[in-house]
Order: sequence, then C-alpha cells, then structure tokens
Amino acid sequence: MKRIAVLGSTGSVGRQTLEVAKSFPDRLKIVAITGGRNSALLSQQIEQLTPRAYYSLAPIDFSPGFANTGIYRAASLEEIATLDDVDIIVVATSGKAGLLPTIGALQAGKTVAIANKEVLVMAGGLVMEAAVTGGGTVLPIDSEHNALWQCLRGESIDSEWKGQVSRLVITASGGAFRDYQIDKLSEVTPEEALRHPTWQMGVKITVDSATLMNKGLEVIEAAWLFNLPLDKIDVILHRESIVHSLVEMKDGSLKVLLSCPDMHLPIKYALSYPERWEDESMPVLELDRIGSLAFGELDSSRYPCFRLALSVAKKGGTYPAALIGADDAAVQLFLEGHITYLKIPQLIEEVIQAHINTANPTIHDVLEAEEWGRKYVQRSLDG
Amino acid sequence: MKRIAVLGSTGSVGRQTLEVAKSFPDRLKIVAITGGRNSALLSQQIEQLTPRAYYSLAPIDFSPGFANTGIYRAASLEEIATLDDVDIIVVATSGKAGLLPTIGALQAGKTVAIANKEVLVMAGGLVMEAAVTGGGTVLPIDSEHNALWQCLRGESIDSEWKGQVSRLVITASGGAFRDYQIDKLSEVTPEEALRHPTWQMGVKITVDSATLMNKGLEVIEAAWLFNLPLDKIDVILHRESIVHSLVEMKDGSLKVLLSCPDMHLPIKYALSYPERWEDESMPVLELDRIGSLAFGELDSSRYPCFRLALSVAKKGGTYPAALIGADDAAVQLFLEGHITYLKIPQLIEEVIQAHINTANPTIHDVLEAEEWGRKYVQRSLDG
Repeated sequence: MKRIAVLGSTGSVGRQTLEVAKSFPDRLKIVAITGGRNSALLSQQIEQLTPRAYYSLAPIDFSPGFANTGIYRAASLEEIATLDDVDIIVVATSGKAGLLPTIGALQAGKTVAIANKEVLVMAGGLVMEAAVTGGGTVLPIDSEHNALWQCLRGESIDSEWKGQVSRLVITASGGAFRDYQIDKLSEVTPEEALRHPTWQMGVKITVDSATLMNKGLEVIEAAWLFNLPLDKIDVILHRESIVHSLVEMKDGSLKVLLSCPDMHLPIKYALSYPERWEDESMPVLELDRIGSLAFGELDSSRYPCFRLALSVAKKGGTYPAALIGADDAAVQLFLEGHITYLKIPQLIEEVIQAHINTANPTIHDVLEAEEWGRKYVQRSLDG
Repeated sequence: MKRIAVLGSTGSVGRQTLEVAKSFPDRLKIVAITGGRNSALLSQQIEQLTPRAYYSLAPIDFSPGFANTGIYRAASLEEIATLDDVDIIVVATSGKAGLLPTIGALQAGKTVAIANKEVLVMAGGLVMEAAVTGGGTVLPIDSEHNALWQCLRGESIDSEWKGQVSRLVITASGGAFRDYQIDKLSEVTPEEALRHPTWQMGVKITVDSATLMNKGLEVIEAAWLFNLPLDKIDVILHRESIVHSLVEMKDGSLKVLLSCPDMHLPIKYALSYPERWEDESMPVLELDRIGSLAFGELDSSRYPCFRLALSVAKKGGTYPAALIGADDAAVQLFLEGHITYLKIPQLIEEVIQAHINTANPTIHDVLEAEEWGRKYVQRSLDG
C-alpha cells in the first residue's frame, strides 16, 4: 500500500489523482490533501476521504454532521509534504506554490510525483540538488515527460542511459490557435483560447498551450528532469496528442509512447511504477480505428512565447522565475479581458528585458524574481 | 569483442550482417561464415574476411593467389554453430536449413540471433526447449520481433513482463499486391510479386510478403519467442513499414518502435545488445519530414495464406512443418512460371488437408513433415 499526499487536490490533476486512487483502493491510500481557493471542494474531498491531514489556504467549513475529529489541519504545504507516513507526494499545485514543499519532500528523502512544471522551470537546479542531498526521487506526471521516462525505462547500462540516447523529442498539439491565420490572433477571445483541441486541463495551462509557452516550459522541465542540455531536446508538431514523446536512440531507433490524451494514465504510471496496473474504465487506444498520426515541423515564428521560454532557459539564473511570474500575471490579465492575446508575449518580453539577473540563485531569490515579474506585468496595466 | 558466426552469409540478411560487422571492427569479429549454392560469393567473402572456419554446401574455388592455409572447412552447419570460440550465431539461412544448427548452438549454451523464421515456425517448441536445457539465448533479428524485444526491454518485474503486457501487435505493409483488386490477382507475374513496397529482401520472403504468408509465420514466431498464446498477438496494417511493432501495456499505454525499414538496424541491435551503437552511415528517421503514419485493419480475406498459417499454428504438431515445405515449393513453382499466384494458397491448403499429424514431434518428424509437404506440392505439378 502506497501512502499518497496530494498537493492541490482541487485542481485538474489533483482531482484525477484522487480518481486514480479510488480505482485502486488496495494499493493506494490518500493520506493527506491540500487546496487553495476552492475550499468548498476541498471540504467535500476531506469528508469523503477522511485523510489523516490536510492543508487549506482559504478558511474551510465542514458539513454540520461531519465529525472531523482526528483529521489534522497542517500549517503549511511543506508540513504536508514531509509527513512521516507519506511515501509519494503528488505536486499538483500550479505556479510557484509547489516549490517549497517539493524541495522539503526531496530533502526528506521522499518520492515526488510532479505535475507543477513551474517548480522545475524556476528552480530546477535547486530541486535536483535537494533530491541528491536528501535521497529523494522526482517522477514526472506531465504526459510528455512521463512518456520520456517510460521510453527510457530499461535503457540504462551501468545506471546511465545517456550513452544510448541521441535526442529527446516532445510533441506539441499546436494549441487552440494552430489553424488560425496569424493576423487574426489580435482578435481572439479568452473563450477561444480555452478550447484546447485535444486535452482537458486547467485554465492557465490551456492558455499557455495556445501560446506554446507551455511547450517552452516543458523543454526546460525535460532538461532538468533528464539532465540534458536544451539542444538535445526537440519539439515536433503532432496534432492528435496520441504520441506524447519520442526517444531517439544512438543506433537509429525511435522509441515512442502512445496513449489516449487522458491525464489519468501518466498519473497512474507515476503511482504504480515500476508496475503497470490494469484499469478497465480507461479507454484503450485502437490505432487501426484512429487511422493516421500526423507530424510536422513546429513553426516557432507563430509562437513568440515558446521562443521567450527557451531564451530565458539559456540565460539561466532568476530569468526563468521572472518569466513564470510575468506569464502567470499576463495570462490572468488576458482571461479577465484587460489585455489582448498578442499582448501576452509583449508584456513577458518587457519583463525579461527589464530583469536584473541573479546567477546561482537561492530559493529566496527565485521566489522574489517570480514576484517581481508578476508585479511588473500587473503594474504595466496601471501605467 | 564479440565473436560471430554467420550461417547463410551470402543471403540478404547474411550480407548485411557482414556489413554491420565491418562498421564495428573493434567490437565484432566474424569468426565463421557459411553459404549454400552461391559459392562464388562465399569464396569472395572468405578471401576478404579470412575467418577461422567456413562451411559451403556447394564446391568452392578460391582465387589462384589466395593462400587459404589455416581456414578450416567444417563438415556441417552444426559444426560451425558449436565452435568453441563463437559467442553469437547469426542464423540467416532460410527454410529448414537453420533448424539443426540452431538447436545445436542453443544446446551448447550459445546466443543465437535468428532471422530464419521457418525454424521457429516448424519447431518452436524444440528450439525453446533446447535454449532452456542448454542455457542458450534466442535473440530475434526479424524487424517486427526485434522491435517487440526492444519495446519489452525494462518492462520485467521479477524477470517477468507478462503481468505488464496485454497484447503484442506487429505491423504488415500489405505486400506488393495490397492495392490490387482481388480479381486481378489471378494474372500477377513473379516480377510484380517481387516489387515489395518498402523492404529490400530475398526472393522467397518477398513473395511470402505479397501473400502475407510471411506475416502469418511472424505471428507464430512471436508466439514462440515471447511464449504467448496466438490470440495475444495481433497484426495491423501499416503501409510505411516505419512502425515495426507495438506493445500494448496493461495500463493503457502503447510502447512502439520506429525506424527506417533497413535490416541493418535490427541486426545491429541483436549484435550490440544491451548497448546501442551509433553508426553515422545509417539513415536517421525524421518524423516531421515523413509527415504521417497510417494504420488500418488487416483485411484477411485478401490473404488466404495468412489464414492458413494461423490455422496450422492452432493445430500444432507437424502441421506447421508441412506448411513450410509446401509454401517453399509452391513459391518456387510460381517464380519458375509453372503455377499462377492464386495457386500458391490452393496447393498449400491441399497439403494441410492431406497431412497426417504427429503430435509432440521430434526433430526428425519435423524435417520429415517439411519434406513431405514440399514433395506433395512438387508432385501435384506432375499429376
């Protein structure tokens, strides 16, 4: 029985993690959950699951009949992430929220299944260092990274797969505006940006998928997770989101992972690893019915956010954190109708140009840069 | 340095094996080679490679200037396959020729890289038993089986992958007549049958690819190699021959192997395993240039030979050996212009109907049944 803490249990990945756990009651036990603003859903989850502990950012009310005696309310996400009786921490928070608990859990030697890619983008060096010093393990939940991890399985010789691999390739659906003419992008609405062609996800990440900021962040995430230079990680356009990633082997073979675009599958793999658990409620991929899979080159001129993400990754230091803060604020402003879609990359670019870098940053530096980037964008609206 | 014996070095897979070895002179050494009727090519290969030993079915002449002192002429393929200083025997013969040397090598505890699928179809039980009792290992070279082996790599838990896997799927290009109307098949010529859309191979296997006999034999080969029932092995139509096989995992993922359709790649993998060796002369697969991969259901009504192969596999005993002999003879008669293309499955079906089975056959029974099937077809021409 694996004991699981889910940070961000009210979000999209968090809710699906609870569903996976429900399908395997003899193998997975939810020990702790945490929520942010949606305390109504968090209280429902607590009443249903009766975990040992929870954390809520917002005030929380339980049903009158619910006896919550014995359920411990922790003081922070970090406290939940380091509870003695937790084996795996699913970091399904978004933005910077997952940073401190991820580092805390890894320092405590725990396994962290991470869906909160901003944590690795902002502070990948600090996170991987915490894993090494604390003896913890980072497992990717993001579908592309989870697929890379599956493809690399068994490829190591003397605990090292790099001698076998020439390139990692992640796929991009192209997002909601992949078929829009570029000159129409100035008019697109938040409603249009939220119509992702293949994946059902949270609001922020769906807009990041339209701008391809999300794909840029994924390249950076892959570089940290698999300890490779950015130029060994490529992106290929694949509209159907069925092929999630490809590993190009040194000998000319490509190992590829396919599945229905459903986040339950990578979540389940991270929790079941090294086993693979059958689940009859999950859709089976029938390639002969799907008919064909298409691939193409990514036209990065359509996606300034993608290029911005890769440029800050090369600069390093606190640049990626400033980008994360700026993107979060800019997407928020777009969703609230304050700025146009094309203003998103413009604001982020301004932030990057204005940022004063700190090389080899501490966690404090990273969090400060994220906040600085966010505030810079928010202030630009007033100016 | 791995020491290699190549049985059938003058055939298509044999010649490509010598090319692979030539690309890695520090890691692979050709110790012995053997040939059948093409003794002119065999003598050239011997003069170039100066192996320690060879076997030739036909009389063989060397160039006047060639000093072949010290190159041992063995008395049989089995003798070559069990030489003390050979690590890996590449069985690149065709038909029944590889049977006795494969079993001999496995009984002697050696690694056999097998391309001669008829050996496993005729006597898979005896071959796998020889591997167990002798401590030998069977590695598949056939591209589909090599791909399955690559996809299953790392999937074992407690040395067993079956708990992780729900189905193996091999791809079929559909062969030379995939786009012919069925009523035109009565008129097709040997020249047309030899135009394979994606693979360059020997003559017999190219006709077997047109009839899909080859794909039926591959299903049987996979059942023996991976010790699975026939109903766990499916075939899917994939015209481009870039996806070679798919492994459907219990958890809903599909692990897939792609490469250019070039036999050098599976040969190299079998010889380099567990390593993967870079070879800049090999083509790299660029999916974004290829554009799309198509899949479809296999219409087995087009391919009576495919259904005949699966039916004999279910009957077991000496039926598969009789089928192998009958197919070999029928394809030969077709290539020589004695029978029409549609007569191939008719003759094989007659053989199967007339065959008297021996359950749990010995090697002798298997070879006898193969010869009986062959003769039955040859005699039918006289009658």
